[in-house]
Amino acid sequence: MIVSALLTSVGINTALCVLFFTFYSILRKQPSNYKVYIPRLLAQGASLTTPFNLKKLIPSPDWIAKAWSLSEEDLFSLSGLDALVFMRLITFSLKIFTFAGVIGIFVLLPVNCWGNHLEEVDIVDFAANSLDVFTISNVNSGSNWLWVHFIAVYFVSGFTCLQLHHEYKYIASKRISYFYSSKPQPHQFTILVHSIPSSSSCSISDSVESFFRELYPSTYLSHVVIRRTNKIQTLLSKAKNLYKRIGQLRSDPTRKYKNVDLCGLFGSKDDRIDHYGKKLEDIEQNVRLKQSEASLIGESCSMFKEARAAFVFFKSRYGAASAFHLQPSSNPTQWITEPAPQPHDVYWPFFSESFMRQWISKLVVIVVYILFTILFLIPVLIVQGLTNLEQLEILFPFLTSILSVKFVTQIITGYLPSLILQLSLKMAPPVMWFLSTIQGYISHSDIEMSASKKVLWFTIWNVFFATVFSGSVFYQLYVILDLREITWKLAVSVPAQASFFITYVATTGWTSVSSELFQIIPFICSLIKRPFTRPEEEFEAPSLAYHRDVPRILFFGLLGITYFFLAPLILPFLLVYLCLAYIIYRNQFINVYAPKYETAGRFWPIVHDSMIFSLVLMQMIAAGSFALKKISPASTWMFPLPVLTLLFNYYCRKRFLPIFTAYSGESLIKKDMEDQKDNASMAEFYNKLLTAYKDPALFPIQHASRDDSLASPLLS
Amino acid sequence: MIVSALLTSVGINTALCVLFFTFYSILRKQPSNYKVYIPRLLAQGASLTTPFNLKKLIPSPDWIAKAWSLSEEDLFSLSGLDALVFMRLITFSLKIFTFAGVIGIFVLLPVNCWGNHLEEVDIVDFAANSLDVFTISNVNSGSNWLWVHFIAVYFVSGFTCLQLHHEYKYIASKRISYFYSSKPQPHQFTILVHSIPSSSSCSISDSVESFFRELYPSTYLSHVVIRRTNKIQTLLSKAKNLYKRIGQLRSDPTRKYKNVDLCGLFGSKDDRIDHYGKKLEDIEQNVRLKQSEASLIGESCSMFKEARAAFVFFKSRYGAASAFHLQPSSNPTQWITEPAPQPHDVYWPFFSESFMRQWISKLVVIVVYILFTILFLIPVLIVQGLTNLEQLEILFPFLTSILSVKFVTQIITGYLPSLILQLSLKMAPPVMWFLSTIQGYISHSDIEMSASKKVLWFTIWNVFFATVFSGSVFYQLYVILDLREITWKLAVSVPAQASFFITYVATTGWTSVSSELFQIIPFICSLIKRPFTRPEEEFEAPSLAYHRDVPRILFFGLLGITYFFLAPLILPFLLVYLCLAYIIYRNQFINVYAPKYETAGRFWPIVHDSMIFSLVLMQMIAAGSFALKKISPASTWMFPLPVLTLLFNYYCRKRFLPIFTAYSGESLIKKDMEDQKDNASMAEFYNKLLTAYKDPALFPIQHASRDDSLASPLLS
Repeated sequence: MIVSALLTSVGINTALCVLFFTFYSILRKQPSNYKVYIPRLLAQGASLTTPFNLKKLIPSPDWIAKAWSLSEEDLFSLSGLDALVFMRLITFSLKIFTFAGVIGIFVLLPVNCWGNHLEEVDIVDFAANSLDVFTISNVNSGSNWLWVHFIAVYFVSGFTCLQLHHEYKYIASKRISYFYSSKPQPHQFTILVHSIPSSSSCSISDSVESFFRELYPSTYLSHVVIRRTNKIQTLLSKAKNLYKRIGQLRSDPTRKYKNVDLCGLFGSKDDRIDHYGKKLEDIEQNVRLKQSEASLIGESCSMFKEARAAFVFFKSRYGAASAFHLQPSSNPTQWITEPAPQPHDVYWPFFSESFMRQWISKLVVIVVYILFTILFLIPVLIVQGLTNLEQLEILFPFLTSILSVKFVTQIITGYLPSLILQLSLKMAPPVMWFLSTIQGYISHSDIEMSASKKVLWFTIWNVFFATVFSGSVFYQLYVILDLREITWKLAVSVPAQASFFITYVATTGWTSVSSELFQIIPFICSLIKRPFTRPEEEFEAPSLAYHRDVPRILFFGLLGITYFFLAPLILPFLLVYLCLAYIIYRNQFINVYAPKYETAGRFWPIVHDSMIFSLVLMQMIAAGSFALKKISPASTWMFPLPVLTLLFNYYCRKRFLPIFTAYSGESLIKKDMEDQKDNASMAEFYNKLLTAYKDPALFPIQHASRDDSLASPLLS
Repeated sequence: MIVSALLTSVGINTALCVLFFTFYSILRKQPSNYKVYIPRLLAQGASLTTPFNLKKLIPSPDWIAKAWSLSEEDLFSLSGLDALVFMRLITFSLKIFTFAGVIGIFVLLPVNCWGNHLEEVDIVDFAANSLDVFTISNVNSGSNWLWVHFIAVYFVSGFTCLQLHHEYKYIASKRISYFYSSKPQPHQFTILVHSIPSSSSCSISDSVESFFRELYPSTYLSHVVIRRTNKIQTLLSKAKNLYKRIGQLRSDPTRKYKNVDLCGLFGSKDDRIDHYGKKLEDIEQNVRLKQSEASLIGESCSMFKEARAAFVFFKSRYGAASAFHLQPSSNPTQWITEPAPQPHDVYWPFFSESFMRQWISKLVVIVVYILFTILFLIPVLIVQGLTNLEQLEILFPFLTSILSVKFVTQIITGYLPSLILQLSLKMAPPVMWFLSTIQGYISHSDIEMSASKKVLWFTIWNVFFATVFSGSVFYQLYVILDLREITWKLAVSVPAQASFFITYVATTGWTSVSSELFQIIPFICSLIKRPFTRPEEEFEAPSLAYHRDVPRILFFGLLGITYFFLAPLILPFLLVYLCLAYIIYRNQFINVYAPKYETAGRFWPIVHDSMIFSLVLMQMIAAGSFALKKISPASTWMFPLPVLTLLFNYYCRKRFLPIFTAYSGESLIKKDMEDQKDNASMAEFYNKLLTAYKDPALFPIQHASRDDSLASPLLS
């Protein structure tokens, strides 16, 4: 990889960025695109129509200023603590990379280029320099200049740990103060109990009632047994599809449906609307029937069997917490308790699963995850093949003439490989999310967090270890399992990949982030969908997909920390990337994302742990590199650093982690005491609590303006 | 190693056993030896004098019958649940090895000797056979007879898992029923809180009072702040030594003390008694003064600073448990709670430690433990050298003539090595116990359990891995760290050590167990001590040292499981060993050991986990062995077995482990309800509770009959 190839990539990329920016700045002002660009504001009831204005056709950067000036308090009131913590992740990374960047660019880069170097930088034909000239590989073995790198590693490790501690402390205190300032919320008074033992003499509901009333007579309030509603769910999704189809038919008066449609139905448009309308009525009738059946509590012969799970409500937060913390039954596989998620956070399909399958599905998920992660190497290896021109020429001799064009070469080596890798990696989040849904989690937030971890390790393994230790799958495993030489092997192969990752960050990092910033894909999708949607159709604003966004930022953080002393050139590109991400996420929180639930920053420990992982990895590579470069004292003195880092992590786990898993007795009891001062509003709250956890499948069917459209005469 | 050497060892050993048995059967009947042989009965107040009887001089085996016929209920009422669980460990091992023994001796041994064998068994000169003839090494590579071993491994794994499940279930149920049948006990109503934040405005005691009274107004009862009493403890131990010395002087009227004693004091015996008596009085006066100072609660200027720890008492078990389970403060490093140990179980010296040192000492202990475990290899390697006659002859040429005597050869190769190993291993339990005491545990039982684990892994590493992978320390680590080839290397080296371990079990196993059974060492010690002890001196019966006895049984269990298919010859020796152990421990429970505290079998999970470890180890070795012997399908089909075993272990952890860490809410509340029926006795219990946790250093000094002996005129 030479400098000119990098510059080509960066150029393409910057051009794309500017293009996207211009499009975005114009398109976002058109009311027809509001659904794409400001769904959040629309969902909140913002008006669709604004008077025509010439300004609408001129790109303007005012939204950047708006996003930039958003204060932390505004962000918190707008999108909650989760969004604030997510933004802290980006600013945290910015801080670290600014510090590391200053050291890297002003200290390490000159040392690499002009210290005790192997190769001279070609100032005259700058673009023809290999990127290796700027990395640690350019420093002579045994050179004392390497001690500069040694000191830099210690400095950056120390600074990162300090910042990690600061952030953990800050977010923990935010979490506590969020709890203190919160109003009574249903999930604070509720636990979920499952694996309730079934008995022939009484129903699940009776068992729950007698068990908890006996154990906690003073704090137990009530309970709701969960019912298996998968049949209703199937019917409801059928009804939704039919309703959509009718909508499509009605909204487009010009189109003729002469050909056979999917149901094999001939006839005019109106006949079809009529037909679908009747079908919809039938299904809705059926749903209502089943809903009323399901709500007959205590009827064990009902076709909607009670699941062996229930939400149990308590009169106080402390009551719920102590019922959760003390294992209720002497048999630990019965009456298993979990803190209840927020009502909107409950993942209802889970309760349709048989609880006996939970264990097996968990095992299956683990096996599938491991297989998927390992087999995913194949596209990665193909990508690596593309970076190697000679191999391409051997495989496809007819390409020789094209490959000899300089620009094509630069695109192929500089841009394409990382783009393909990036696109194939896009598969990971939905797959991991799907795997997590069948793993038995009861809430969306748990699924998101589990999927986050899966995506993160998937990415680390595939992008980092797999591209670093190239070879067959089994050879990879074989190398990893040899713990003796892992440091050595990392030190040999990680720096060799430096130029690849510099390009990766500088190109696909930007492309990906800018295409999302400017909502390119949603805009194209909306163009395709537009004929089929009706303007008044109800829609929800999307919420931030933590399993996609958190691992992405974390992965770039990992790259930056690992490479900062090997190839400091990566840092300015990372900083630009992070700045773009900073603006994006602040903007798409204002306009696009609306939080559906609040975990109060419960995902921060994942961030902390992965940062520690990347620090230790960097330190191991440093130790190996110094050994390779034959200054063994530096290698030896590097070893206390990972030990200290892990000790620091151990301390943080003791000091902060418990705050992220449960609230303390002190805070629960203080909040309870506050509540007791206002008896009237608590009574009202208890009433609401009893209906807070209702399966959405049991809600009455409501389609926006259904009655108006379907009940009205079809031909007026 | 040839059969005759083994037979020599077994012979020596059996002779020793019989000798010890005869001695024991006579000596135990002599009243002068009661302190050695029946301390427990003595401590319970059994009479020392019995009429003279001729039977006293004839060895009799009646105690064996008594020990054998002891029922489980008797054992439980005699020594509590811990002893019962300990005996279950032995009977469990007996069951497993009987099953494995039948398969091993009647199926595997014939296959090894006469299947598709490498070497013929020499029936004529049986004693000249190598032990290898009886092991798996005698089976030809590629022989289909190895499938018999394969099936045996599956069978024994299945049987062991079934038994493990059965035992876990049984002991868990015993634990629950023990709790249900127990009377109110102080530790059930108490928690220990430490790391109490200090404030300048109020004392520790006031902080505790206000904190818990505010949080738990309905269940909080009272508290006791722990004081640093290390100075009193030092004085008390000085007083104890002086008292002992006076006792020695008074008990031996014949001895003349002409020479200078340790205090540099000349003079007659009476002068010295006088001098020591005065010194003792001074110290005791000092102790009383300091005790009264220390008990002035709330005086922060007192020289006995309050430690930042307290026992907090609650009105109900549930109150205590929920205060423990819910982290009390929002800062997880303050107000750290632990369930209180039983009053007799408290390890008081711990509270003299500064709490800030706790973390550091823990780290130091881990480092020291690792170093000790690794450096201990040196004696082990020397021991290995002894088994190699040729090396000895090279090192010590003058021994050549002695070494050529057949009997000496047999002793050196068969008996000495394992004896030396056994003796050096005896160092481990006290060292590990010491390490555990400074690790910050608050109870003797925690220390015992932590030391148990340390000793177990120490033994496994040193006896098993170290003797198996002979070589330098670093080479050992180097081999272990290469996870790829560990199965292969185990399979190569473990079977090669088979004959060593057969001898090890058949000789030192018996010697050690029989010498303890017959209390040889305590008897010799008592002979040496006797002139210095007074018959009426108070003494305590020893309690079972779990950190010594549990790992020992477990280690032989490990050997048996690992070697059962490699060298089935080990099993009959193990069975004899276990039978001896069975009788011993049933007898050292009737007569010797008296339990000081009760953990209700809390150490069983250690047993379970180490059995699982040995099963997986055995299965890995089996997979490697079959690969070595070139029947790769057997090797491949061995791999599901460790996976299944680990899944089984995972299930057991979910199903049973929580029962061993805490009692369930259900059981706590039910017991509380029972108590509430009897108000009067609960009021009495609460009164007792307040004084249950008193530092022994603050008790008034009491030496048995001190007043009689010291207050009486010295010359009458």
